[in-house]
Amino acid sequence: MEFIAQPMEIENKSFEIIAPYLKNLNLSEEETKIYSRIIHAAGDVEYAPIIKISADAISAAKNALRNGANIFTDVEMVRTGINKRVLKKFGGEVFCKVSDDEVKKISTQKKITRSMAAMRTFGKSLNNSVVAIGNAPTALFEVLRLVREENIFPAVIIGVPVGFVGAADSKAELASQNKIPFITVEGTKGGSPIAVASVNAILYLLDNDRN
Amino acid sequence: MEFIAQPMEIENKSFEIIAPYLKNLNLSEEETKIYSRIIHAAGDVEYAPIIKISADAISAAKNALRNGANIFTDVEMVRTGINKRVLKKFGGEVFCKVSDDEVKKISTQKKITRSMAAMRTFGKSLNNSVVAIGNAPTALFEVLRLVREENIFPAVIIGVPVGFVGAADSKAELASQNKIPFITVEGTKGGSPIAVASVNAILYLLDNDRN
Repeated sequence: MEFIAQPMEIENKSFEIIAPYLKNLNLSEEETKIYSRIIHAAGDVEYAPIIKISADAISAAKNALRNGANIFTDVEMVRTGINKRVLKKFGGEVFCKVSDDEVKKISTQKKITRSMAAMRTFGKSLNNSVVAIGNAPTALFEVLRLVREENIFPAVIIGVPVGFVGAADSKAELASQNKIPFITVEGTKGGSPIAVASVNAILYLLDNDRN
Repeated sequence: MEFIAQPMEIENKSFEIIAPYLKNLNLSEEETKIYSRIIHAAGDVEYAPIIKISADAISAAKNALRNGANIFTDVEMVRTGINKRVLKKFGGEVFCKVSDDEVKKISTQKKITRSMAAMRTFGKSLNNSVVAIGNAPTALFEVLRLVREENIFPAVIIGVPVGFVGAADSKAELASQNKIPFITVEGTKGGSPIAVASVNAILYLLDNDRN
């Protein structure tokens, strides 16, 4: 069977196929790149109308990362997918604590998910950081609580947890607050590849700015 | 905001919500668990009619893993997500070569994707293994070529690459061959969490059998 085996050619062709689904959304060039990468990662054009990027999110994320902000993720799959080679050029690192012994202990004691306990443990290190949540609604609820109750202010929250229990509610809460710039999607869809696609799209925008 | 923060409770509630979408599909109990975990991972009930599990796939995967089969993945995100704690009970390991220097070299020389080069490099170690492809159509095309042209026979291929360039074709080719048991989904959807959900569902079936 004939197929395209050259990586850049695959990506360009994919973005061409996605373009018509974005044309009525009035997106900036930078938004188009983030939308395209998300839809590409999900293989699902039905993401187009449910992606929500707050007006200040892209500039906030770029500014933070350009100044060496760290990225905090809820699960290892998000950490794994983020392009560390590009991130490192700006000085940032990716942190995930979901498998730490301390976090496991807190999770068991308090009967909460490990990714929720992990976010709580990050605490003040989340200030001015990029938070990327791809899996656990409970992690997003916890970050929003830290913002609300403990005056912790990430530079941007990329919150795209997935599933039928809490995900839609946690993302609606993210989209309804106006303290922290955000990228999210409405409803039950989301997941690690969506978080990774969003973060990497921004890293590639920054990297292009440099060149 | 009120929400469920207890992991098992979240999963049970999620599977309850998914159940009505499966009831007309005539699934076995084991198939139901795999379908549920995939839909849970995608937050997308529209997976229900497009998941395809060949008649022999679950038993083939369970037999292989029970006997210590290794798992070979196309990308690091799939390797990361697989439950190594459970896999290890049976003796298997997970391998991914997409970031190996040798693979990068082959990829550049032959102008093919790294995950395609990685599958080629695995070669005979794929015999009797579990292949789990969550991202790259080119990796799946390459495994199918190894089966067809080089008499390499994985125990099962979990092939759910994602996207608009080659993914649907590669999965159609997987579903139309009858040498190797398979799990796949039709069309453009798929991704690392779908591959991970499939593999982990089978690991949990095995783990339950033991208990």
